[in-house]
Amino acid sequence: MIGFGNVGRSVARILCETTNGALELTHICNRNYKRKMQPWVPADVVWTDDIQQVLGSDVGIVIELIGGLNPAEQIVRGALMAGKSVVTANKQLIARHGPDLLQLAKDHGAQLEFGASVAGGVPVLPALRSGLSGDRLHGISGILNGTCNYILSRIEGARIPFSEALEEAQARGYAEADASEDLDGGDARAKLAILALAGLHARIAPEAIRARSIRTIDAVDFDYAAEIGCTIRQISRADLQEGTLFADVGPSLVYINSPFGRVYANQNLVLTSGKYGGDMAFLGAGAGGDPTAVAVISDLLFVAHNLSAARPEVSSLVSTPRVSSDFESRWYLRFFVKDKPGIVARLSAILAAHHLNINALLQKPGHDKSALPFVITLEPCRDSLLHPALEEMATLEFNTRPSLCLPILG
Amino acid sequence: MIGFGNVGRSVARILCETTNGALELTHICNRNYKRKMQPWVPADVVWTDDIQQVLGSDVGIVIELIGGLNPAEQIVRGALMAGKSVVTANKQLIARHGPDLLQLAKDHGAQLEFGASVAGGVPVLPALRSGLSGDRLHGISGILNGTCNYILSRIEGARIPFSEALEEAQARGYAEADASEDLDGGDARAKLAILALAGLHARIAPEAIRARSIRTIDAVDFDYAAEIGCTIRQISRADLQEGTLFADVGPSLVYINSPFGRVYANQNLVLTSGKYGGDMAFLGAGAGGDPTAVAVISDLLFVAHNLSAARPEVSSLVSTPRVSSDFESRWYLRFFVKDKPGIVARLSAILAAHHLNINALLQKPGHDKSALPFVITLEPCRDSLLHPALEEMATLEFNTRPSLCLPILG
Repeated sequence: MIGFGNVGRSVARILCETTNGALELTHICNRNYKRKMQPWVPADVVWTDDIQQVLGSDVGIVIELIGGLNPAEQIVRGALMAGKSVVTANKQLIARHGPDLLQLAKDHGAQLEFGASVAGGVPVLPALRSGLSGDRLHGISGILNGTCNYILSRIEGARIPFSEALEEAQARGYAEADASEDLDGGDARAKLAILALAGLHARIAPEAIRARSIRTIDAVDFDYAAEIGCTIRQISRADLQEGTLFADVGPSLVYINSPFGRVYANQNLVLTSGKYGGDMAFLGAGAGGDPTAVAVISDLLFVAHNLSAARPEVSSLVSTPRVSSDFESRWYLRFFVKDKPGIVARLSAILAAHHLNINALLQKPGHDKSALPFVITLEPCRDSLLHPALEEMATLEFNTRPSLCLPILG
Repeated sequence: MIGFGNVGRSVARILCETTNGALELTHICNRNYKRKMQPWVPADVVWTDDIQQVLGSDVGIVIELIGGLNPAEQIVRGALMAGKSVVTANKQLIARHGPDLLQLAKDHGAQLEFGASVAGGVPVLPALRSGLSGDRLHGISGILNGTCNYILSRIEGARIPFSEALEEAQARGYAEADASEDLDGGDARAKLAILALAGLHARIAPEAIRARSIRTIDAVDFDYAAEIGCTIRQISRADLQEGTLFADVGPSLVYINSPFGRVYANQNLVLTSGKYGGDMAFLGAGAGGDPTAVAVISDLLFVAHNLSAARPEVSSLVSTPRVSSDFESRWYLRFFVKDKPGIVARLSAILAAHHLNINALLQKPGHDKSALPFVITLEPCRDSLLHPALEEMATLEFNTRPSLCLPILG
């Protein structure tokens, strides 16, 4: 592992916690590594600040997590030319040199994976490589930058000026002191270039994609957008039409009820459009050490799986747990009754006897008194506690139909 | 290919359209195949009704698309024992015999893939195999049955009785004459068992999962659910807690604003919860010939990729298209002006001169007349047509700030 920052620490921790045997962490390389050392890293892991010590070793995979173009490009090229596979989260490197580096990997019998370079833990790049590989995609769009999404969500929620939302994001660590790369679209268009490469098989320079800044957005724009059912998000989109790739990154109006309109704070959403499979959506945590580490480790497992001929026995991977339907949840109970005084009193007495707490009683007007529907909702309890009460209530003579019991999720 | 129904026809068509060289369709096996033959299938494809002719040939991969347990199980076992890899869309087979068949595949150096068995074209099973493999998942839930979702969406939308919604679904081909397997949860719990196997590494018999029918749902339940901000969907969920797998399939209340509450008709949605990556959502077309075929073809490419050592040159897969930002869309133009008579007249004259159509003029009250915000929305046009008009409008003396122009998407 080269680069032991936030993501590197998460990757190392998960590798150390999850001893599945397929992967072994051998080296951690970082400048001034002594101040970075962690007690939970196994003693046989080599700490070093010398990249050549990693490249010259017999490791099978190099994890590049230092970011930026220089010296990351030299490191990745060096590793691939030494026949080592590379897993990287480096969006700038892949956006600029992805096709060349993929060819270099192929020429040296190595693999290059970069699932963590776009949308953090949202497995959209692996989906493009695997489950969507059978489709012919023509469009990809997404909310790809958590900083912009945080700031726009905050302006939307609190109607504060852009400058105030930016300061807040900086104070909370969601934006850097110089956030230009995020705010002006440089980050998102590198990611869009990678998505276009992986999903549309189109090689485009990030600089060829128009990027518009979100700095121009005013709180009043959310008022006007709301007038027409919209909100504002930084949207990255690419559409392949007859040999032209239409591409744009920047603030855009999206319908409040659309998938994009409901993406808040640090979430990323990617939509794909395919000739055969139609539209697909992928939503999840777009950044953060642990989610990004999931993408890195998934790539490591993928590469390791390809490198190793031996596969574990299926039975060793599969457990046979006890199965139960005894979920705890809130509950919706619906009755149809022949109306008469005292019905609620008798039902609530049974619930109380079973220590079940009523959350609400609902009765909508306008129904026939001979088959009157009404509803009781209950505070969270396990199914098994509720069941005896339901059986008791089912025997009451005023029921005109069997009652209905549904869990209330979320 | 064994079984040439709706999905088989789509798979064959895409294979014939997409000549990427990695895959070659050699045999189509179906009872009474003569009535199934299609003019677009290449003449060198062998049509047969004899499964042994396929299993005895030198094909590398058998595609099983006949469904059900018998004779599908014998066919899949026969293929795997002959060292052939198998791609199947058969949920009942995998839900019941998945682990055994995976072991059988491993024992014979073959592969078994079943990405099409759950959620049609939504690449959730490939995501569990690839991009989420680095996480440790503890929960999976989903809307997995299009028939139930269609019927519940119809009761929700039209407040019709269940029986009427079912008849409508049957008339439109969304439900079978005997729809018990869908309505009573048998279909969804087979899919949930597969998701539990692939995502939670838990082997459970589908029959061990409680399934509740949607037949009990009345239109009035949507009225009461709406009272507490909810709607009703058939939800399948599995949660692994300390060695117990909590699992349930059946109608449940979900918040209207939650991801589940916004899934309509034939869409499928799957949510996963992981220790490291948190929550992820996958949404798309859950059934249909073409989307399901995408899942089958993606599996075929995955298996072929593993079988073949030779990889195509990267450059042969990647195009270098022209890049443009000249999208057509509706537009949002926001101005800050020093108020005086005639502003709208002058702006609209410029727009008219450029043949741009105004969709709406928006001006919210309560703003300072010396820096008054107001908005014009435009009918769809290309960016390049709008740009000269924007430049002209920027020169007008009443602007107190640069105007803002954003696309309106969707």
